[in-house]
Amino acid sequence: MTTTPLGIAMIGHAFMGAAHSQAWRVAPRFFDLPVHPVMSVLAGRDADRTRAAAERLGWADSTTDWKSVLDRDDVHVVDICTPGDTHAEIAVAALEAGKHVLCEKPMANSVDEAVAMAEAASRAAERGVRAMVGFSYRRVPALGLARDLVAQGRLGRIHHVRAQYLQDWIVDPAAPLSWRLDKDKAGSGALGDIGAHIVDATQFILGDTISEVMGTLVTFVPERPLATSHSGLSGTASDETGPVTVDDAALFLARFGSGALGSFEATRFANGRKNALRIEVNGSAGSLAFDFEDMNVLEFFDGTEDPAVSGFRRILVTEPQHPYVGAWWPAGHGLGYEHAFTHQAVDLVRAIAEGTDPTPTFADGLQVQRVLAAVEGSASSGTWQQV
Amino acid sequence: MTTTPLGIAMIGHAFMGAAHSQAWRVAPRFFDLPVHPVMSVLAGRDADRTRAAAERLGWADSTTDWKSVLDRDDVHVVDICTPGDTHAEIAVAALEAGKHVLCEKPMANSVDEAVAMAEAASRAAERGVRAMVGFSYRRVPALGLARDLVAQGRLGRIHHVRAQYLQDWIVDPAAPLSWRLDKDKAGSGALGDIGAHIVDATQFILGDTISEVMGTLVTFVPERPLATSHSGLSGTASDETGPVTVDDAALFLARFGSGALGSFEATRFANGRKNALRIEVNGSAGSLAFDFEDMNVLEFFDGTEDPAVSGFRRILVTEPQHPYVGAWWPAGHGLGYEHAFTHQAVDLVRAIAEGTDPTPTFADGLQVQRVLAAVEGSASSGTWQQV
Amino acid sequence: MTTTPLGIAMIGHAFMGAAHSQAWRVAPRFFDLPVHPVMSVLAGRDADRTRAAAERLGWADSTTDWKSVLDRDDVHVVDICTPGDTHAEIAVAALEAGKHVLCEKPMANSVDEAVAMAEAASRAAERGVRAMVGFSYRRVPALGLARDLVAQGRLGRIHHVRAQYLQDWIVDPAAPLSWRLDKDKAGSGALGDIGAHIVDATQFILGDTISEVMGTLVTFVPERPLATSHSGLSGTASDETGPVTVDDAALFLARFGSGALGSFEATRFANGRKNALRIEVNGSAGSLAFDFEDMNVLEFFDGTEDPAVSGFRRILVTEPQHPYVGAWWPAGHGLGYEHAFTHQAVDLVRAIAEGTDPTPTFADGLQVQRVLAAVEGSASSGTWQQV
Amino acid sequence: MTTTPLGIAMIGHAFMGAAHSQAWRVAPRFFDLPVHPVMSVLAGRDADRTRAAAERLGWADSTTDWKSVLDRDDVHVVDICTPGDTHAEIAVAALEAGKHVLCEKPMANSVDEAVAMAEAASRAAERGVRAMVGFSYRRVPALGLARDLVAQGRLGRIHHVRAQYLQDWIVDPAAPLSWRLDKDKAGSGALGDIGAHIVDATQFILGDTISEVMGTLVTFVPERPLATSHSGLSGTASDETGPVTVDDAALFLARFGSGALGSFEATRFANGRKNALRIEVNGSAGSLAFDFEDMNVLEFFDGTEDPAVSGFRRILVTEPQHPYVGAWWPAGHGLGYEHAFTHQAVDLVRAIAEGTDPTPTFADGLQVQRVLAAVEGSASSGTWQQV
Repeated sequence: MTTTPLGIAMIGHAFMGAAHSQAWRVAPRFFDLPVHPVMSVLAGRDADRTRAAAERLGWADSTTDWKSVLDRDDVHVVDICTPGDTHAEIAVAALEAGKHVLCEKPMANSVDEAVAMAEAASRAAERGVRAMVGFSYRRVPALGLARDLVAQGRLGRIHHVRAQYLQDWIVDPAAPLSWRLDKDKAGSGALGDIGAHIVDATQFILGDTISEVMGTLVTFVPERPLATSHSGLSGTASDETGPVTVDDAALFLARFGSGALGSFEATRFANGRKNALRIEVNGSAGSLAFDFEDMNVLEFFDGTEDPAVSGFRRILVTEPQHPYVGAWWPAGHGLGYEHAFTHQAVDLVRAIAEGTDPTPTFADGLQVQRVLAAVEGSASSGTWQQV
Repeated sequence: MTTTPLGIAMIGHAFMGAAHSQAWRVAPRFFDLPVHPVMSVLAGRDADRTRAAAERLGWADSTTDWKSVLDRDDVHVVDICTPGDTHAEIAVAALEAGKHVLCEKPMANSVDEAVAMAEAASRAAERGVRAMVGFSYRRVPALGLARDLVAQGRLGRIHHVRAQYLQDWIVDPAAPLSWRLDKDKAGSGALGDIGAHIVDATQFILGDTISEVMGTLVTFVPERPLATSHSGLSGTASDETGPVTVDDAALFLARFGSGALGSFEATRFANGRKNALRIEVNGSAGSLAFDFEDMNVLEFFDGTEDPAVSGFRRILVTEPQHPYVGAWWPAGHGLGYEHAFTHQAVDLVRAIAEGTDPTPTFADGLQVQRVLAAVEGSASSGTWQQV
Repeated sequence: MTTTPLGIAMIGHAFMGAAHSQAWRVAPRFFDLPVHPVMSVLAGRDADRTRAAAERLGWADSTTDWKSVLDRDDVHVVDICTPGDTHAEIAVAALEAGKHVLCEKPMANSVDEAVAMAEAASRAAERGVRAMVGFSYRRVPALGLARDLVAQGRLGRIHHVRAQYLQDWIVDPAAPLSWRLDKDKAGSGALGDIGAHIVDATQFILGDTISEVMGTLVTFVPERPLATSHSGLSGTASDETGPVTVDDAALFLARFGSGALGSFEATRFANGRKNALRIEVNGSAGSLAFDFEDMNVLEFFDGTEDPAVSGFRRILVTEPQHPYVGAWWPAGHGLGYEHAFTHQAVDLVRAIAEGTDPTPTFADGLQVQRVLAAVEGSASSGTWQQV
Repeated sequence: MTTTPLGIAMIGHAFMGAAHSQAWRVAPRFFDLPVHPVMSVLAGRDADRTRAAAERLGWADSTTDWKSVLDRDDVHVVDICTPGDTHAEIAVAALEAGKHVLCEKPMANSVDEAVAMAEAASRAAERGVRAMVGFSYRRVPALGLARDLVAQGRLGRIHHVRAQYLQDWIVDPAAPLSWRLDKDKAGSGALGDIGAHIVDATQFILGDTISEVMGTLVTFVPERPLATSHSGLSGTASDETGPVTVDDAALFLARFGSGALGSFEATRFANGRKNALRIEVNGSAGSLAFDFEDMNVLEFFDGTEDPAVSGFRRILVTEPQHPYVGAWWPAGHGLGYEHAFTHQAVDLVRAIAEGTDPTPTFADGLQVQRVLAAVEGSASSGTWQQV
């Protein structure tokens, strides 16, 4: 086990901060890593809360000045877990300071910001500084297997992609306004928060990009009680109300470069669906289906088999052959939500040590941002929009 | 058991003819009917094949002149099971001759034809002559239950409809041209053949209509081997090829009158999906999910329950309380595909006897036709289209 | 289509009578049969009710004297759908009268009766008279496919069989006594009624027989309200109660001739399970799983495949290659409960016409009866019992 | 966050050692604990391998002398992760030395050993020293919810328990002998290794104990290649073979104290089932079903509901109300295999701090051992055996 340290500074300590902390904590215990991640410092806005979070999450130090971490020699990676409106500033500054960057998705709140970030990443790469976007679902073993099967040609020519990200956490009109419903903070609603994930995941699986979209955005509940405190997903409702300035749901059709047709839907109003990131792919030789609510399973139909015994196979993606799985438990002992973050940390650490660019790159993140912008454009114009 | 006969003439004896024959044969054996359907005469194009079909299917007589059945006193109902290009002529003539009409879907190959049919039905209704479109899936008990739950308010305000009709029978590019791939015969491809079903089924479940659509049509395999014989779904391939003049897949977004958002997809290229008519509905109070490949089940999420014990319930729709089920077997003894046709026959016979208009009416069929035409229009224009 | 008639007399017209009538009615409409079944006469106990049933079910004649049908020249087959206590007398008399016999399961209420029936069948066979037991689940296409896969060696050496038949129709202690809870009429409870089905089905799938059992029987509710009328599964409860003289549930372990281990459970107290006939088979090369509540599906695990893509396949048993399916609908258009009875009628008619013995034979039925008796013996003695 | 340390010594560092290390590492990061677990020292047999494991797993120190940890003041808890033949010696010594003990299951290899351990635990409890058996599946949230529902009376009187633990890791006859197939090391095979889990889990869910059993044990492959190295579950096969001295599969029927009937099966030969711990419970008011291969789900049937809308609900056990879940992620973000070990550590730490006895106690472990012994006795005698 190596003792070469790789110092991490994390900015933000809410939901994503907890997930990323678990990743840094656990990665070196299950995976052979060329360098050893060290949880050096946590940056937040409030000193007391940040100090408490650092202690609970296991960070050696804490600060309320995120810029200060860029000057520290014991920090090699800046891990950005803040809301989207701050990503561009922090990421660009960190890259220019020579720090590797892991940036939560959506990469930015606008294409302009994303362009700036991608350019900064490009300049930094010349100096051996790495940048990666946190599309963590790529690191779910079942989706890694999905990509492998497509890349091996097991699906043949791809005809259809059906992608949905269904949640229901604000279906109650009395659920309070959180920063996630505020366009200034969050950039968009379901579109950027969860739609971005299915855009990335389907492009990742297909090894293809979306070229054209036609969509619509809707806000079912335009006014909500103000939250008395802005804390993550929840908060207590007050008597006053305020406007919801983002979309509750986003639906769009898409054409991929290869000619495949896609149907996309991201919503926070699918009652009873808690985190149903669902993807189906149909090709000339076979099909795939995935639902994150059963995350250790990939369904695969092999269309080349004898029809008498063909059917969608429920592959339990817990075999040592499957992506990332060999480091964990025996077959049948499933993984959970946060394991994808651990895999993400592992891939980033290895890329840094090997001097290669980790994926998804900031250019990949920018491309996703362009898709989201095209959906917004299409929703305004009522026509198809090029990406 | 009544002995008042209700004479049926059926036109066409392929796939749908077999299903309708089973319906007429079986309906009076399980359901109490006010009049007794009699399988009087079968009309087809080829005398020998029609006679053989009549014998096999149990029709008392056969003819190659469909118009002759309109003159027969022992014929009270004309059941139209031919390809769509003949529906309008036959239906209008039958209605004018005072015969009740059951017409397979899609009702017609164009809006103009459908208008003529709806007008003929309207005139006929004044004389007590009934007309019904064969959207048989409405008569699957699980979809009847779905409609009931929505009507009872168990789903609250409807936000989302997700409807797919997925088949794969021409995913092989070597599958031959059949009349279903010929625009002149079939009117359209996946859109009219199976897309029509999910348009009708979702409107039926919601008690609402689609007001606006935006969609696209695609033909993945534009040229196919000519079939040496045109027989139903299959046929033998020859060396020559011909153009596919209909869509292989149709995708569209939809807005319902109530504000609900719909996502629709009909395709014959979903490898491994054999007859996956799938519908999900999400409302403010609950959700529903259905897949015809598990046709005796309706999933229902009751969003008003204690979250600790709430979840999608797999309702086995085989209880005596469920629509149509009481006439059949004890709980847990599921029904099959053709039972919906029997239920359709039962509902038509009862409406005729009671002197009421059976649903879906020809006006309903026309409205579905307008939705399909709007999808085609939208696919051409690249913009949203009013229905 | 043949016009050589094969006259059928059916004895009994409750639940099973309705299912068998549908079989005789429908079989010649979908299958090419060498002779044409004719629904000649229905025998019952009450003249009015039998006449009404005959009319409703489509039998040409009716009688209250079942023995009279044995003298009729237009009767070639006697189809026994009465409670088990009458099977032996009717079947033996019919066979001796030279009539082919289809006898509902369980074949008899005791081994002695079953021996007499098997001997009568053996004597009759010498004269070309056929006898068959109505283990209809053998004719569910998915179970036919299961047997084929085992016979082809796709499962290798069989290690485990897990068979359950779970219902819940008397879980309510207020459900009234019916003839099915009366040992004199029914012979046994869950054991003979539904346990017999899983004994036959597993032996059929494996092509093997049970050699030894160890089990227990239990009656959870020993006293129930008397039914005011004995009609099939239901009836109205009265204030008086009477004893339940059969088992509510039967559990047993079994050893097959080949060394496979079996675990069997038949119960009417599995709340929420309506007709869950479930069978799993595990072999050295693969596994199978079936649940009648999803009757058009067989799950198959091929253990010889690459573990990276292996998993239980959900085979939709609706392909033309599958047993019986080619006669019905296109792929994906599932069958229902009663189709198995149609297949049973088809197989019997063909065996009669071809002069071969239909299976399951009365010898097979006797063997099942011996297994049931061994379970009862074991439940009394508390030890393993040879079959 | 507390800083009062609770020093842990872990004995053994194979599969279970990795799982327990993750528990100690992660527990204080997600749960508020009254004392702070410290990973003080790891004991193993080989110095180099133990030192490497300690470094990788994050233990501060290592030793090859497990007895030495009993003398250390910085050790408060001894966590026993070795094969079963060593449990009794280590546990008794640790308890006598005043160390709290967490002992992996099965608690011991014989009832005699288990009695000694339970007695030692009883004596230790008087001095405030705690002992707990590692039946980790109790800490899967879905099984905690199952127990809660039974305790709340939502299932009514329990009639049936159906418990299976199905694996397939030695279905290949060429899989080498490991210590788990050696009676001297492992005590028994499937019975003790995985059968113990379903005995504990069902008794836990029911709040009841098994009073009587009747079963059989079988060894399908009695001779296997010797492993060239004994490492965990795998190892390389050599040319020599040796005898398998434990059961490959164990099946038994059981009667619970309350009168419920159980059917149990533990096997390593269920091809395609990787870690299918499956439990169904049927009661007069409802039913439950669980499968560890879909571990974040509990199916619940509420038999008191309107039959028109009742069905097994797929409860996604990821709500903040569910046992342990509130400490982790938002709804729909599932947990994995090792989370149960974290919950186990949390419960133990809290019990120690609060001065209460953690469950399952060593008395509970002894009772499970008695059930296993009764199964072995029954398998020998061929009769029912009292526990």
